[in-house]
Amino acid sequence: MSERSQQQTGRTAAQEAVHDSAFLRACRREPVPHTPVWFMRQAGRSLPEYRKVREGIPMLESCMRPELVTEITLQPVRRHGVDAAIFFSDIVVPLKAIGIDLDIKPGVGPVVADPVRTRADLERLRPLDPSDVPYVTEAVGMLTAELGATPLIGFAGAPFTLASYLIEGGPSRTYENTKAMMYGAPELWAELVERLSVITAAFLRVQIEAGASAVQLFDSWAGALAPAEYRRYVMPASAKVFDAVAEYGVPRIHFGVGTGELLGLMGEAGADVVGVDWRVPLDEAAKRVGPGKALQGNLDPAVLFAPREAVEAKTDEVLAAAAGLEGHVFNLGHGVMPAMDPDALTHLVQYVHERTAR
Amino acid sequence: MSERSQQQTGRTAAQEAVHDSAFLRACRREPVPHTPVWFMRQAGRSLPEYRKVREGIPMLESCMRPELVTEITLQPVRRHGVDAAIFFSDIVVPLKAIGIDLDIKPGVGPVVADPVRTRADLERLRPLDPSDVPYVTEAVGMLTAELGATPLIGFAGAPFTLASYLIEGGPSRTYENTKAMMYGAPELWAELVERLSVITAAFLRVQIEAGASAVQLFDSWAGALAPAEYRRYVMPASAKVFDAVAEYGVPRIHFGVGTGELLGLMGEAGADVVGVDWRVPLDEAAKRVGPGKALQGNLDPAVLFAPREAVEAKTDEVLAAAAGLEGHVFNLGHGVMPAMDPDALTHLVQYVHERTAR
Repeated sequence: MSERSQQQTGRTAAQEAVHDSAFLRACRREPVPHTPVWFMRQAGRSLPEYRKVREGIPMLESCMRPELVTEITLQPVRRHGVDAAIFFSDIVVPLKAIGIDLDIKPGVGPVVADPVRTRADLERLRPLDPSDVPYVTEAVGMLTAELGATPLIGFAGAPFTLASYLIEGGPSRTYENTKAMMYGAPELWAELVERLSVITAAFLRVQIEAGASAVQLFDSWAGALAPAEYRRYVMPASAKVFDAVAEYGVPRIHFGVGTGELLGLMGEAGADVVGVDWRVPLDEAAKRVGPGKALQGNLDPAVLFAPREAVEAKTDEVLAAAAGLEGHVFNLGHGVMPAMDPDALTHLVQYVHERTAR
Repeated sequence: MSERSQQQTGRTAAQEAVHDSAFLRACRREPVPHTPVWFMRQAGRSLPEYRKVREGIPMLESCMRPELVTEITLQPVRRHGVDAAIFFSDIVVPLKAIGIDLDIKPGVGPVVADPVRTRADLERLRPLDPSDVPYVTEAVGMLTAELGATPLIGFAGAPFTLASYLIEGGPSRTYENTKAMMYGAPELWAELVERLSVITAAFLRVQIEAGASAVQLFDSWAGALAPAEYRRYVMPASAKVFDAVAEYGVPRIHFGVGTGELLGLMGEAGADVVGVDWRVPLDEAAKRVGPGKALQGNLDPAVLFAPREAVEAKTDEVLAAAAGLEGHVFNLGHGVMPAMDPDALTHLVQYVHERTAR
């Protein structure tokens, strides 16, 4: 790869280094010098330097300041030496950008002023134009310049998860209104997730056009659905998002927590890399996902609260289960938690690198 | 069965009718006149008559008043015509009964004043004596007299779930302290769940001795664990509970939400009936559980918020998936939600009875 000249690949030397990174190689199921590591929510409250720069700045506002987004996105790369950065944003940012009245309340999550419940409400969900999110283009540009050989993962929420916030008006544990629409008004539901797939695809395209070299589509709450419902009501919209970015050839990662029953379908939707939470061992996950896809995961995040020896033992179990995979990106099975010791995360990156050095 | 005389079985006519009920027959995988139905949390806030009798009475106190427990337990039997009653209690009642300082905070859940974190803390977890819960014996006695041919299901929380409340000090979404102890101090953990298994077994024995004709052990939050962890850290303690009540010969039901990966192990722990949430179709669940066990479940509770036709269609899907089971108890895949329309539940009972009448 690296011996190919810039002329042949059309890539600059920096782009070539990114393309040849352990992270992107693993996503493409190519041999790697070591198993790449990154953490969902690696840029966030677990880091004192994050808490410092966020002080007094509301979450949504922080997503709209390119310098701040750049700083926050870079922090875990500097500190932990992770193999990829993930664009600091929130899944509701594209909805805010098209004018939906919402906010992110500390300790609660996204809160939507007027929930989407009727056909008339759909009118508010107009397509996203790149000019709606200039701060994203700017931040991604700054980031790729700063990151050098470290790839940047673009970030978006999947239609089901976005729909759940819009319909419930905020976070939910039961998704009762969401499911009531899904089951009771399936045509309205289909139109809603169709509109969301257009918005989400545009949000990812902006990030890729600006320089992101992979994307992760978070269907955080899809695990609330049984496979038949996921296939019927959710998968078509997620597939549209993946299709819409296929032309760029960047790896497309897909993740939701508690999706053990859905792993095969989430791959089928168009993911190149399927993220797995800690409940399904990676060798079993590989059977469900089938060949031709890499897997990402899946150390139980709560293990990080145990002593170092326990973390290492559990990490060894994950690496053993991953031994036969076509491609493996090491990650936690869910996001970093605010109370986690950053040093434990740094050590985990080093430990995985050492244990998998080839 | 019914032609056998009281002398042969040692049962009164009333006990004979209970023994021959659709619910207990299904649990024993015998032919049934119709698929029996009950709902987890059927006695609760969805019923106006419940909200009325609970008015001004804190949750824990209500569990300690035999007349009130009897009334609340009977309400859904009267209203919905369900095939079984479940003893109204809370999983922390036996902990309160042995002197643990805890309360159930409305909108929060159980809150433990001094979390259990050290070996010294274990001393507080003394065995439960029947004399600690006279109100349970009394209420079960009153209930079986009132219930006639309708079986009463005894109720207890499983060691893991109880441990999680004791260690976290309240409800948790991540179980970080629980897992930190499990992974970091496995001997302390083992002693804790051993003590809890003794308490839980005693709590179930009290209910069976007083007349409960089945028991359900709720490991509500076990779904937070991967199978290897469940097998190592949780299953032995749950198995002890099941063993301790085996001599009574009453069906033992086991349930936790999000336990798709654990269904086989939860059966292996000693359950006669494995409860399944809505994420795993019952025919697939049967493969995981294996032969010789009945299944309970598994309509997505959120479906109840959709129009009646959608509820019926989804119910038909559950019944179709259950067609080949050795024994099937119809239930929701999780508890009744407070905002549910009681009439929708009553209709669901009738609908299942009609569709499965033989």
